Formats: sequence, structure tokens, C-alpha cells
Amino acid sequence: MSAPALAVLGAAGSLGRVVLERLAEAGVEAARVGAWDGAEAAGDTVPFGAAELPVGALAAFDPGAAAVVLVALPPREAAAWAARCAGAGCAVVRLGGEDDGIVLMPGGAAAPGAVATVPDALPLALALALRPLADEAGLEALHVVTYEAASGRGREGVEELARQSALLLNGRPVEPVVFPGRIAFNVLPLGDAQGAARAEAALAAALGRLLGIAPPPLALTRTEVPVFFGHAAAVHLRPARPLAPQRAQALLAAAPGLAAGGSAAAPATEALGTGAVHVGRVRADGTGGLALWVAVDDLRLLAEVAVGAVLPLVGGGR
Amino acid sequence: MSAPALAVLGAAGSLGRVVLERLAEAGVEAARVGAWDGAEAAGDTVPFGAAELPVGALAAFDPGAAAVVLVALPPREAAAWAARCAGAGCAVVRLGGEDDGIVLMPGGAAAPGAVATVPDALPLALALALRPLADEAGLEALHVVTYEAASGRGREGVEELARQSALLLNGRPVEPVVFPGRIAFNVLPLGDAQGAARAEAALAAALGRLLGIAPPPLALTRTEVPVFFGHAAAVHLRPARPLAPQRAQALLAAAPGLAAGGSAAAPATEALGTGAVHVGRVRADGTGGLALWVAVDDLRLLAEVAVGAVLPLVGGGR
Repeated sequence: MSAPALAVLGAAGSLGRVVLERLAEAGVEAARVGAWDGAEAAGDTVPFGAAELPVGALAAFDPGAAAVVLVALPPREAAAWAARCAGAGCAVVRLGGEDDGIVLMPGGAAAPGAVATVPDALPLALALALRPLADEAGLEALHVVTYEAASGRGREGVEELARQSALLLNGRPVEPVVFPGRIAFNVLPLGDAQGAARAEAALAAALGRLLGIAPPPLALTRTEVPVFFGHAAAVHLRPARPLAPQRAQALLAAAPGLAAGGSAAAPATEALGTGAVHVGRVRADGTGGLALWVAVDDLRLLAEVAVGAVLPLVGGGR
Repeated sequence: MSAPALAVLGAAGSLGRVVLERLAEAGVEAARVGAWDGAEAAGDTVPFGAAELPVGALAAFDPGAAAVVLVALPPREAAAWAARCAGAGCAVVRLGGEDDGIVLMPGGAAAPGAVATVPDALPLALALALRPLADEAGLEALHVVTYEAASGRGREGVEELARQSALLLNGRPVEPVVFPGRIAFNVLPLGDAQGAARAEAALAAALGRLLGIAPPPLALTRTEVPVFFGHAAAVHLRPARPLAPQRAQALLAAAPGLAAGGSAAAPATEALGTGAVHVGRVRADGTGGLALWVAVDDLRLLAEVAVGAVLPLVGGGR
């Protein structure tokens, strides 16, 4: 009795590669996995543990050939492919994107004929870190300031950061393509001059949905920083009822999917390569609230939740 | 009648060079300016407008030879040299450091026989941006999250960021020397794991002194980011009385030393090369408060205030 076939759509992108890495680590057999991507990547191969998988042309992908589909494509394509595959009876997990419909949290499971979406990494990480604290002590106000990595803009974002950095170190000018301005050795607020920031409204809405508090009492400033992978956020929380840092620490340590009490180190050197949300520097702030530092390897978190949701279906071991 | 001589101590460092640049821009004659620094730099030259100044050995500097002294040395040396020069009757301006004694704000003036200290750039910039708002509407709580440049650790910090970045782009490992960890393509919180952060307490105290509110009702997270020059901060402010974003914008636009209403761009691309504190993205946050983005060229701000304070004494024109 062989396990059903599993297809990864968008397998050659940054996120797709991490998904394949996670599937291989979990003991899924290479022979059961199909890698698919757009015309540019089709014909190449992608690593799968010690093996290599050929990348098929996405346009030629037949949902009837796979029981389980992981969709790691850009938002516009992702929605169409997810719907098509679910319509063909596949169990579909979409990684990132609008978290309406079935929202997949850590520990969740995929089901045939339906699309389950893993929320974007940043609202998911913040919700996982904040929920145990909000459940215990309520949430009167939340101040979140983000430090977002180039990986949030996909492989092109990562490549642009590398290219701009190399040019500037050689004293040459840079021309932004993917980012709205120079990202190398710079910090770019994700919003325009006078405030109206769709990116901030979208994150606030997503976080509110995940916490079950809409609208959340949230003051938010998002920025992009010259980091390749891994988002971080400085979080200041004003609870409705008193919450001592020690108690917060204990709640975080007991919550699933969190690595609490870590050092103050940032995502690229601490959270990277793990699927956990790292919460550190839990302390009283100077206004009667709590401060925390949240760091997450955005791609690994999405891969962890998505692969965890399909392993029971494809018979992975670990 | 010739203008009195002016000495810059620490002239070969990042800050000293910016001070010389500002003096030259202000029309001070090169013949009136002496450049002094430690043994490593002594014998070299430093740019002064289109000219070059020889760098004298600091150990051989005689305070009797200059009427005005600008001290741009590291903190420990700075205090001793500032006291010695003031004792010899010089008008002394110390750039950055502990802001006890005479605190020099923009528009202030130096006086013979006394040391006036320009506060560190970050508390000074925050105080300049916040004071008009706090004066108008009171200050119930303040959440500040910083993005601090390598220039905050002097020329060695800037060089370490460049070195680490080049190594990592070439796939080679890095060994932190000046920073407590990898700074290239990373974010480093300025505080240890469990909170106790002297750097945060020091900034809170300095800001409180400058605002005349001690202790300030301030929740603070400081981080260092891979930016060469220019600090930024995401500021969320809860006023005691209602304060509309438009009114805040008008107050900021009328305040001296501020460039208000700028774009959301970050220090390295906007504030750099100006002595003004840039305040942008003034908007209502989601908790009844105001959000702002503050960016400053740390070295230029210090140089601007210090040079402004001595120009009347040395007869600079602009």
C-alpha cells in the first residue's frame, strides 16, 4: 500500500524550497513528491533531502495526479490553483495569503476537497505569542513595531537585497526594483508619508481575526529592514488585568509552538531554521505594561504548519 | 583683527570629520582651525572644505593655544579633555555624552571657561520631536522603538558593518568585535535576554531630563540595525488631552530644528546630510494616540548644534 502522492506548487521559490526541506526531514519519500513551478523554473531540479526532484511545468499540472497539494505560489496564482485543486478533490494547503475560509493554525489538519490557508507568518507569529497573554490578562492596548525581512517579498526581494548591498559596498549606485526604495543599509517604513498604510491595516486586520478581537486595540508601525530571512517585532502590551513578567514567561513557556525565554538575539541568528516562534526579553515596560521581542523564521513557520497538516494524509513519520 | 583659534579634538573620527565639514560650510577659515587626535591619526590630514588640515597629536595639544574647543572624543577621554580646556579658560563644547552640567540645545551658545555638552543624538532628536506635542497636549504614555545605526559605535562600528557585510556576501563567516553579535543582515536588540538593559535605562533617563519629565512614562525597546549612518525611531504617543494628527503636524512644522511632514523614507536616504530632525508619518494610531516616525543623521545633528554654539565666538559667517 503506497502513500498518496503529494504535489508542491511553487517548488522552486524560497518558500517552496523550505517546504521540500521540511517534507524530507519529516521522512516523506521523494518518490511520492512532485515539484511544480512556472515556466522559468520548469526543467530544473530542486533539492529534496539528499535527492533532487525534477521541476514540472505548472501549466501542465493535473490535480487528478495528487491527493494532497501544497500551494506556495504568489497570492494571485495561489488562489486560482488552490480552488482548482480542491475542486478536483485534493486536500489543499495554501501557505500564506488572505486568511479567510479555513484558517490553519499549528496542529491543524488538511481535508480532501477543501482549501486550508496558513496565515501569513507575521500575524500568525504575533497571534501565537500574544494569545496566551491575552487569554490570561485581557488586552487593553498593543503597540507593535516590526522589522521585516526581504524574504517577505519572496526570492526576488532576497536577491535585490544581496545585489544592492554588493553594489553599495563597491561604491556604486542602486536602482530599486522590488522594494519601493533602497533597502540595503537602510530601513523602509511599509507605508507612505502621511500614514495611510494598507500594509499596516492588513496586518492589523489579520491579527485581530486570529486573536478573535476585531478591531484589535493596536498601534502598528511596519518596516522592512536589510535582513535576508526572518521577521522580528518589538511588542509592548498593556493588559486589562495585572500580569507580572514572570507569569507571562511561564504562560509563554507552556504554550505550543513557542520557544520562550530565549536571548535577545534577532531572527537571523536565533529563530532561523526553526519552525517555532521565539519570544524573548519579556519584561515590565515603563508604562505598566509588558514588553516582548518576537522573532520568527517566516518561511520555516509556514512550512512547519503546512507540512504538519498534511503528514497524517501522506504517511510521513516524523 | 583675526578671529580666535578653534581646536577640534577627535578630528579624525567619524564625528570629528562631520564637525570639520560643518565648520567649513559655515565659512570658518581653515587657518583658524586646528585638528587634533590620538597617536594613530596624528600626522595624517583631514579634509576641511576644499583644503586639508594636518592632524596634531592630542597628547601635545595646549589649551592655551585655542579660545574655543570642540570635543568629539570617546566619552572617557572627552570628559577629561573638556574639563582641562575649560580650566584653561576655553569655551568648550562637548559633542555627546552624559548631559549633566550645561546642556546645549539647538540655538544655544558656548561661553569661555565652561563646558557645554550637546546631548546624545537619539535623546536629543526624540526630545526635539516630542516637546511641542507634549507641551500642547501632555504626555500620558510613550512607546519608542529604535533603529540605531553603526555610527552610534563610532568609526569602528561603521567599519565592522562593512567588513561583516562583505564577508557574508562572499559566504564567509564573521567574528563580531565591536558589536555583541552579527550586525550585518541582522537586528540586534540593545539589551540582554531577560530585560535588564542599561542602554534602555540610560536613554529613558536622558530623554526624561531633556523633556523635563522624570521618569518619563516610557516603554522603550532599542535595537541596532545594519545601517551605516542615521538613527530612526517608531514613536507612539498617548497624549493626556486630545491631539489631532493635523494639529500635531502644524506644531511640528512650526518647531525649530525639525523637518516635519517628510516622506516615510528612512534616515540613510532622507535625513542624511542634514542637521534637522525629520518627523514623518504623523497619524492617528489604533489606540487613541498618535504615531510618528523620527529620523536623524546623528553625526550631523551633533555637529549642527555644536558648531552653531561656537560660530558667534569664532566669527563664522553662515
